[in-house]
Parts: sequence; structure tokens; C-alpha cells
Amino acid sequence: MRTQWLDETIVYDGVQLRAHWALARTGLVGDVLVGFRGPCRVADAEIADLADVDGPGIAGDDMVHFVWEAFDHADLLLAVHRQRLLAAQARELLAELAPRATVQRDGDDLWVGDGKLSISIATVSPVSALVHFAVNATPGGAPVRTATLQELGVEPIAFGRALLARIAGEQQSIADARAKVRPKGEWR
Amino acid sequence: MRTQWLDETIVYDGVQLRAHWALARTGLVGDVLVGFRGPCRVADAEIADLADVDGPGIAGDDMVHFVWEAFDHADLLLAVHRQRLLAAQARELLAELAPRATVQRDGDDLWVGDGKLSISIATVSPVSALVHFAVNATPGGAPVRTATLQELGVEPIAFGRALLARIAGEQQSIADARAKVRPKGEWR
Amino acid sequence: MRTQWLDETIVYDGVQLRAHWALARTGLVGDVLVGFRGPCRVADAEIADLADVDGPGIAGDDMVHFVWEAFDHADLLLAVHRQRLLAAQARELLAELAPRATVQRDGDDLWVGDGKLSISIATVSPVSALVHFAVNATPGGAPVRTATLQELGVEPIAFGRALLARIAGEQQSIADARAKVRPKGEWR
Amino acid sequence: MRTQWLDETIVYDGVQLRAHWALARTGLVGDVLVGFRGPCRVADAEIADLADVDGPGIAGDDMVHFVWEAFDHADLLLAVHRQRLLAAQARELLAELAPRATVQRDGDDLWVGDGKLSISIATVSPVSALVHFAVNATPGGAPVRTATLQELGVEPIAFGRALLARIAGEQQSIADARAKVRPKGEWR
Amino acid sequence: MRTQWLDETIVYDGVQLRAHWALARTGLVGDVLVGFRGPCRVADAEIADLADVDGPGIAGDDMVHFVWEAFDHADLLLAVHRQRLLAAQARELLAELAPRATVQRDGDDLWVGDGKLSISIATVSPVSALVHFAVNATPGGAPVRTATLQELGVEPIAFGRALLARIAGEQQSIADARAKVRPKGEWR
Amino acid sequence: MRTQWLDETIVYDGVQLRAHWALARTGLVGDVLVGFRGPCRVADAEIADLADVDGPGIAGDDMVHFVWEAFDHADLLLAVHRQRLLAAQARELLAELAPRATVQRDGDDLWVGDGKLSISIATVSPVSALVHFAVNATPGGAPVRTATLQELGVEPIAFGRALLARIAGEQQSIADARAKVRPKGEWR
Repeated sequence: MRTQWLDETIVYDGVQLRAHWALARTGLVGDVLVGFRGPCRVADAEIADLADVDGPGIAGDDMVHFVWEAFDHADLLLAVHRQRLLAAQARELLAELAPRATVQRDGDDLWVGDGKLSISIATVSPVSALVHFAVNATPGGAPVRTATLQELGVEPIAFGRALLARIAGEQQSIADARAKVRPKGEWR
Repeated sequence: MRTQWLDETIVYDGVQLRAHWALARTGLVGDVLVGFRGPCRVADAEIADLADVDGPGIAGDDMVHFVWEAFDHADLLLAVHRQRLLAAQARELLAELAPRATVQRDGDDLWVGDGKLSISIATVSPVSALVHFAVNATPGGAPVRTATLQELGVEPIAFGRALLARIAGEQQSIADARAKVRPKGEWR
Repeated sequence: MRTQWLDETIVYDGVQLRAHWALARTGLVGDVLVGFRGPCRVADAEIADLADVDGPGIAGDDMVHFVWEAFDHADLLLAVHRQRLLAAQARELLAELAPRATVQRDGDDLWVGDGKLSISIATVSPVSALVHFAVNATPGGAPVRTATLQELGVEPIAFGRALLARIAGEQQSIADARAKVRPKGEWR
Repeated sequence: MRTQWLDETIVYDGVQLRAHWALARTGLVGDVLVGFRGPCRVADAEIADLADVDGPGIAGDDMVHFVWEAFDHADLLLAVHRQRLLAAQARELLAELAPRATVQRDGDDLWVGDGKLSISIATVSPVSALVHFAVNATPGGAPVRTATLQELGVEPIAFGRALLARIAGEQQSIADARAKVRPKGEWR
Repeated sequence: MRTQWLDETIVYDGVQLRAHWALARTGLVGDVLVGFRGPCRVADAEIADLADVDGPGIAGDDMVHFVWEAFDHADLLLAVHRQRLLAAQARELLAELAPRATVQRDGDDLWVGDGKLSISIATVSPVSALVHFAVNATPGGAPVRTATLQELGVEPIAFGRALLARIAGEQQSIADARAKVRPKGEWR
Repeated sequence: MRTQWLDETIVYDGVQLRAHWALARTGLVGDVLVGFRGPCRVADAEIADLADVDGPGIAGDDMVHFVWEAFDHADLLLAVHRQRLLAAQARELLAELAPRATVQRDGDDLWVGDGKLSISIATVSPVSALVHFAVNATPGGAPVRTATLQELGVEPIAFGRALLARIAGEQQSIADARAKVRPKGEWR
């Protein structure tokens, strides 16, 4: 898997979570994780989570976004595990960058007290698995009470670049672990 | 998936990470995660991680063990993701139980400073995926510098029971997430 | 897998065999099998079986319907096996409820003499496997010669509820069987 | 899948349910279902079902055996579905051959009253899925109360040959069904 | 898998590479490979290869086409391997039919010097894997420099029929190989 | 996937085609293809192809060997496709290195006239897929009539290194192709 931080501001409206968007944007062929900063205004037709379809909307004025498209092992169950691990990694990174704050993970969501720090979804296209994860950078524009990286004193782009590296690193480590283990037999 | 805390002391020597050990021990049929407390002395022939085969041994006098056997989706890649998520969950739980301590996760390992808090492996049998994760409860018996729950001020059995519940809860939440998401199409 | 009998009359027109219909109708998240009674008038665009596309239509004034959506193991080959087993279970149940009648199973169809008792299809959505199975409750509305539960003296709703329980029971028994079996080796 | 009835008497001791036994016996390469008649005395080491390991033994003096080895889609969950469908087909065939008898199916077992008519197991080898199903032909040798084809007035070899044909026929029909169905979309 | 040569001229415009086209055309149910001769003018909306979307177009006045639809093991990674092997087989056949020519394979493309002899794509539908492979029969109509069977002195229909047979033969041989091999264990 | 040419002479006796041999030999973690030169004397217990078990033995005094272990997509059907494609690539390479010779591929075997140039097998371990392919470098030691690279005027080590590069290149190209293709819909 390859990663790329995109320096330009991109409005995330949900079409970025479609097959081959990352390829078109970056030219990187294969499993790719891209990060960028920009507002979030998910169009109704692009909402993937049925729990959100009749909700207050998915929006924010300034977020750090991650879009992951995997063609290899494009299975939804695995994708949700990857998404959860990504959220856990984000929390771990924040524990290092903002050691005094208390960030909680609840499934694919991060919280600071009762402020929602992140949004996320994992889904599939006919040819790939897709994960979106985004963290509020600065306040404003969200339909719910939020927390932000600004409140945590975390610089958004440094956070974004660091998380890209961590996720790629752990995926490599997972692949390596799989290739170094002996199988086990029957207990009796 | 079902969980069970076993109150008896069990010496973990590696045969517990074989197919159907948990079934034989608990009578629970299907995906199961069991926890127990006891020493760890992994027999050479039971070492699954090739990185450990010529190492100092895998041992500890008093650990909290988790043995997870999954028959459903018994895939090694998924099992390693589950193992990593389990380690992340253990860290998250410790951050709540011992908020002043700094526990770091490095792949499937937890560390407190340069003290190794945990050991873990994920592998497969011909009919299942298997994960072992164990945390040092009190010092002694390990061939490497360790950290322990005792140093963190965390009660081992409470920790064990709480982690069982958390893992089962997140697995259910992952299954639910998969069933509530709409697919996405082609970008262009 | 969970089951639910829906007491209201529902016209089955084929949109019920789409992803997440059962979730929207019942609120049950995950693998679900729902049963209900109502007419059947499958819209042309909703016909899944290519063998039916240019046929006389799929219709009936009063049927007992079963809609099964599985997110776990959403494979079409497995779904057709499940569908066939469902049809076999329906036949077995009818042999108990109407012991003097002779119901024959031919693939996914049940017959009483030359009267077609049931219709069925198994297919997939991008996120799930889908099975529809329906049995004529009372005569009328079908473009072919039919048999009905009424002729067999079988009460439709009792049949529907009993079949739901049987299918869920066998799926559980299948999952259990998988978790209790030792693998075998090479013959020579 | 190909089928073959073996005319010679073969003692089923469990090694027949190993990878490539059917190939060695018949020369048929690929998915194969063989039938034969003979005693059954499963060696302890060959017992696959853990529920039977400490049981009264698996034996019978005269049974009609079916051994199915599938290399294509050698998945245990599918294999158990195939096994169940095979049992259902056996029951359907007996309903035709012995219309006055009442044969009940309970999972992978057939019963006539409280007499057990059949035994069965589905498992995997490292390269295939394996199913054994056997029906008592004449009484004797079993550690439990049995029923037999003789009591049902069913000729064992005719039954065996007919069941081979039926299973192969339905597997073909399942494969065909998979290739004739259109996918479905999202409900909303 | 079954094969069929279609004697009529068919314009390949890309809709032939959709689910169930081959079934509708031939009536053959299941995995099928069809061959035919005709012009090629792929409509923009039917272009599957993103590398071609903004390219000069995919066209030719007279080509030998192969359309392969597989419902069994409908996996894209496997489909690309099958496509590559098909291209290699085409090259091998041409080496026999035109021993003096030098045909090179580069991935899924065949070349004679700097003349492109073939086009190809492998993709998936929701229910199947699909491969198109086509070789220029006579010159004309292509947006790039081409080579043709005519230049090689190869009769198009004989080539087409021979390649159908070879591909089906090798698929059978692959299936047989899988069913005749013993697994291997751990090195140490 | 990574490749490595091993300069030392290694006797291939079949244990090299076991899980993690390449890891132990090279230290390369993950999918790996290694090449080396050495005699071949496959021990009976290591013969994987059942067609060879009662044959004349698998041996040669001087061969160029390739051992491929894949942990990713460790499926036997795919492994056989990869093996066939490897054989086709070997033939293509030989057509370039020895343009005057006529090397034929028959499944996984290469022939020069009635001389067998190569041997090959594809199989699985519990954690990986394994392929062995070997080409006779110089004559001697084989139980059948052989052809050799020497007769073709091909330098063995240059051939070995070139084939390693080609196989890795095509695997990358296959992975890329999978990530650049749009799915297709229903024909009608």
C-alpha cells in the first residue's frame, strides 16, 4: 500500500469514496491511502452509512481526511477491521501528540468528552474496499457537538502525515506477521 | 462469539492454542474467547512465531491470558487484524484503568517504557484461526525485561474480564457495521 | 441469524429482495429472515431469474413469503445451497403438517402433482446474499397451475412461523457442526 | 462432479474419508462422489466429529456408504450445507421408495421413529472438503438402536445408485442456477 | 467450461462484455468462452480499462474476438491471471501456425514488432468474471499501428477455433492438477 | 513479491517446497521467489504430485530451480494458474534466448522435441501456496529423456536471473491491472 498527502484543499462530498478516485487524483496504482485537508459536506446520495441517511447530515468546515482504497482483499469484514484499527491508531497518535487530553475511541469514532472528534465509514465498491476517516481540524460547520485538533493543540497536517505513515507501517507489519507464523494442529 | 473467564489457574504452554482446546475446556461451541490467569511456559514445539524459535523463550510466572478461536472467517490475514485490534483495545482499557501510566502499542506488543507488558501470536489451524494474547500480571519468570499490571496498579482479573467484554462488544459492532452500509460506485 | 414474522399484509413486488429492505422493515441488524403473507406481483425490472424474464410473470394473490438477507458469507454459491435446503425444509415441514399429501421438491420448487406450490430465487446484492421463497396460501392470481397450502389443509401463518424457526435452527446447527469437527489428512 | 458406484464390498474404517482416497480407488480426477456397500467400523483415530470421540463408537455390519470429496470450493461451511442437502435428498428418495414409512431428518441424521438410520460427517483436508454419509442396509453391529433399509423394504444398491444420481443432478442444477441470475441493488 | 464458435459476424462494442451476454447468445449455462469474428468499436461508456478512457479509442475493422464469462471463482485477481495465460496461449498457438514470425507478449498484449496484434481486458460483473481478448484479422480501422493475422498468414477462424479448444483444455488440466496434489508441511 | 538468486549450489530434495524454507534461507519476509542451481533428487515422502508417486522418480544432476512461496492469496487454484503462467514465461524467455529452438509448453511442462526440459508442481502448505519449477541445465541423472539449457545454448544463471525478474514484473503488472479496471453491469 502506498500513501500520499495531498497539499491542496479538497472539499469532501462523498464522491471521493468511490472506486478509483484516489487513482485519478494521485496516479498511484493499487492499494492507496491519501490524506488531505478540507471541508466536509457529504451529499445525501453519497451517504453510505444507513444510520446517517435520515440524520442531521455529515459536515464540517475544516477536517483532516483519509481515503483508503484497497483492491487487494477487498472484503467488507476486513475493511471494517482495518477502519477500527485506523481509528485506534489515530487515538494512539493523539495520545502522543496531546498527552494531557483524553481521547476515547468508541468503535470507529473518537471522542473528547462529549465532543465528537471524527467521522468514519467503511464500505465496498464492485472492485475495492473503501474507508473514509476524518478528524475535525478547527471548529465550525458540524451538525453535532464536536471536538477538534485545534483544541487538542495538534497541528492538522503533521497529524495527517504521521497517521498515513503509521497505517502503512502497521499494514506492512501485519503482512509480515502473516508470513512468519507456523500453523497449529488439533488439541487432541 | 462468546466469552468465558476461567477461574482456575492454567499453565499456558502453547497447547491451548490448538484447535478445539477452548471447546474442550468450556463446552462452548463456535467462536469463543476465553481468559484465565496462570504461568506461561511455551514449549519449543508449540512456538508459532518463527521470530521466537531461536529466541530466549516465551515465559512468565503470572500472566493474564486470552485464547481466541474463530471458526467463522478463519483467515490468517483477518486474524492478525483482530489480534492488532485486541492489543489496541487492551491499551485503551489500560488507559482507563491506569490513566497516569503510558502504555505504548507496537504492533501486537504493549510496552511500558522499555518493559514488555505483553506477548501475542495469531495463527491458524486447519479449521480455525487462533489468537493468543497475554499480559504480565506480576513480575518474574520472563527472559526479557517486563512490565506488569501490578506496576500499573491494575487488578488482573478485573482487567481480564473487562477485556473479554470489550472484544466481544467490538466484534458485534463490526458485524453490525457491515450490515448497515450501502456500497459505492465508480468515481467516473 | 434472526427471524421475524411480520403480521401486516405486504405485497411482494420484488423490491423486498434488495439490500437492507429487511433492516428497514424490522430494524434487525445483520443476517435476518423475515416471513409475511401477501400477494405477489413481481415487477419485470425486479425479476432476478433470467429464465423468468420472458415468461408468464411471477404472481399470486395470496402467498406466504420468506425473505432472507445474509451479510455474512454473502456468496452466491452458498446462497443457492441455502435456498435448496430451505426448500427441502419446507417440504419436510409439510410432510409433518400434511402427512397424507405428497409434496415433491424439484430443486428450489415444491410441487403437489402438477400444481406448483412455490416460487424461489437466490441472488446477491453488492453487500449481501438474498433468497426469496414463497408458497401459495390460497388459489388465484398465478399465471401457471398451482397448488396451495389451503388444499393441503395447512394454516399459512403457522406454517410460516414454523419454517422460520426451522431454518434458523438448522443454520445454528450447521455453524455448530463446523466448530466440532477435526480435519483429516492425506490417504497415502 | 462425477459419481461412481463401487461394486466390491469395502469396510469403511474412516481412512476412506481422507484426501485422494476416492481418486486412488476410482481414478476419477476432481470432485467425485462414490458409493459402496460394506461394514462400518470407524477407528478411533479416524473419528472426525468431536461429539463422537468419547461415544459408543461408529459401527454397523452392513451399510450403504457415500464418500464425497470436493476440491472445488473446499470450504467447510459449504461442505456442511452440502451434507445437509444430501441428507434431505436421501430422505426425499426414501419417501418415494418407501412411501408408507416416515423417515425424519434431524440435521445430518435420518431417523425412523427412534431408530437411527444413518450416520454422517463433513470435514476438510488441506486440499479438499470431505463428506461421509451412510445408511444402515441390514441390522447388526451398531452400538445404538438403528433402523435399516431392509425394514423400509428398500433395496440398498438401487438406493445407493439413485442417490448418487440425485446428488450429482442437484449439484449441476445449483451451478446452473448461479449462472442464470441477475444481481439486485439497494432498497433505498 | 464450455466453448462455442459463433459463425455470424458480430460487432464488438463492449456490451458483449456484460453479465449473461454469452448465455443469451448461446444458451450455454455456466462458465463459457465464445469466439466470433467482427469489427470492434468499443463505446466510451463500455470501456473498462481506465488507461483507455482518455485514449485514442478501441477499434478495428476485422478482429477475432473471445469473450469469457466465468461464474465459478469469479475473482478479479484470478481473472487477470486467466487473461494473461490466454494471451500466452494465443502466442504459443501463433508460434505453431506462423513459425517464422516473432510474436511477443507483453502482459495481456501481443505484438509483432511495433505492430499491436491484440487488445484485451479482464473485469468483473456483480455475478461473474469477464475477459475480452481480440486479435486483428485484417488491417484497418485501428487508431494505433497494428499487426494482423493476415500478415502472419494465419487463417482467422481456424485460429479462433483452435484457441477456444486450447483454453478449455488448459482449464481442465488446471482443475485436474489441483485435485492430484498432496499438501506440504512446515520446513522446520 | 520479492525475488532472490542464490549463488550457492543447493540440492533440491523437496524439503525446499515447504512453508518458510525461503524465509529461512533468504530472510525475506512475505511472498518470495528464489532461484538457484543444483541437483534434483526428490525424496519419495516429498513428492507432491500423486501422478509421480509410483513413477520413475524426480531427479537431475544439474538444474535451475525456482521456489515460489506466496502467503498472500494462498489458494491452490490461483497457484496452479501462476505455475502455468510461469511455465509460459519460461518458454517466452527461451524463445528470445534461443530463437532457433522450438520449445513447446504442455501445461506445466516444457519440451524440446521429445526431451523433457522441465519439471514443476504447485501445492499448498497450511499457510501458503508453493510452486516449484526447474529446468535442466546440463544432461545427466534424469530417469526420463531430457532436454537441457546447454543444448539450447542458454546460460543457466542468466536464464534464472532473467526469469525471476520477468515473473516479478508480471505479478506487479497483474496487480496493477486489477486496480485500473471498471466493473461491468448486466447485459439486459
